[in-house]
Amino acid sequence: MKKVNLAEAFSTFSDYWSPKIAGDVGDFQVKLAKFKGAFDWHHHEREDELFLVVEGCMRMGFRDHFVDLGPGEFIIVPHLVEHRPEALTDECHVMLLEPNTILNTGNIENELTNRNLQRIA
Amino acid sequence: MKKVNLAEAFSTFSDYWSPKIAGDVGDFQVKLAKFKGAFDWHHHEREDELFLVVEGCMRMGFRDHFVDLGPGEFIIVPHLVEHRPEALTDECHVMLLEPNTILNTGNIENELTNRNLQRIA
Repeated sequence: MKKVNLAEAFSTFSDYWSPKIAGDVGDFQVKLAKFKGAFDWHHHEREDELFLVVEGCMRMGFRDHFVDLGPGEFIIVPHLVEHRPEALTDECHVMLLEPNTILNTGNIENELTNRNLQRIA
Repeated sequence: MKKVNLAEAFSTFSDYWSPKIAGDVGDFQVKLAKFKGAFDWHHHEREDELFLVVEGCMRMGFRDHFVDLGPGEFIIVPHLVEHRPEALTDECHVMLLEPNTILNTGNIENELTNRNLQRIA
């Protein structure tokens, strides 16, 4: 049985908005992602999504408000809720927890859509 | 939409081995628990379980080895695998991620068994 050290795992990749699979918990997955700038507005039809900030700061935009998060803070975005994650620092390291059926860009498809996530642990 | 600050959430309770529900992600739950000393050996029939150390250090005992974890490190214990969590520091603060069907003591029932987890967020 192996552990994952988050700082070490984040040091193994440098691309942005490209979640890496770091573990499976039943049909959920732990993913690690580096955010830079703003992502696109989207929602997920069925999947709730947890964002836990490990390093840096981010803003989770909603259509009528936003929530800023720093290290050691998490937010759960329910399915169907439109959201837009955005790094508030130069980059922001985030641990995601979500069903393994989720598509990173949710209901939209663009250059950020990624169907073949790399596994790092 | 509200965020959870882990340090603040841990400051709201002081009992050990009594996970508090801090959020729902689909049919999974985020729970926060304070460990002190050693828990009992147990396994879960169906549920995998993630342990992320937030503060302090812990040992996850398995029958043939153990894994020590510090802040920012996580381990996933697959279902059916016997394990025994143990605090290595005076206390250890741990974020759990597991299906909402899980019983904390798994296949055993004793004074640590808790069927009515408190919700703190």
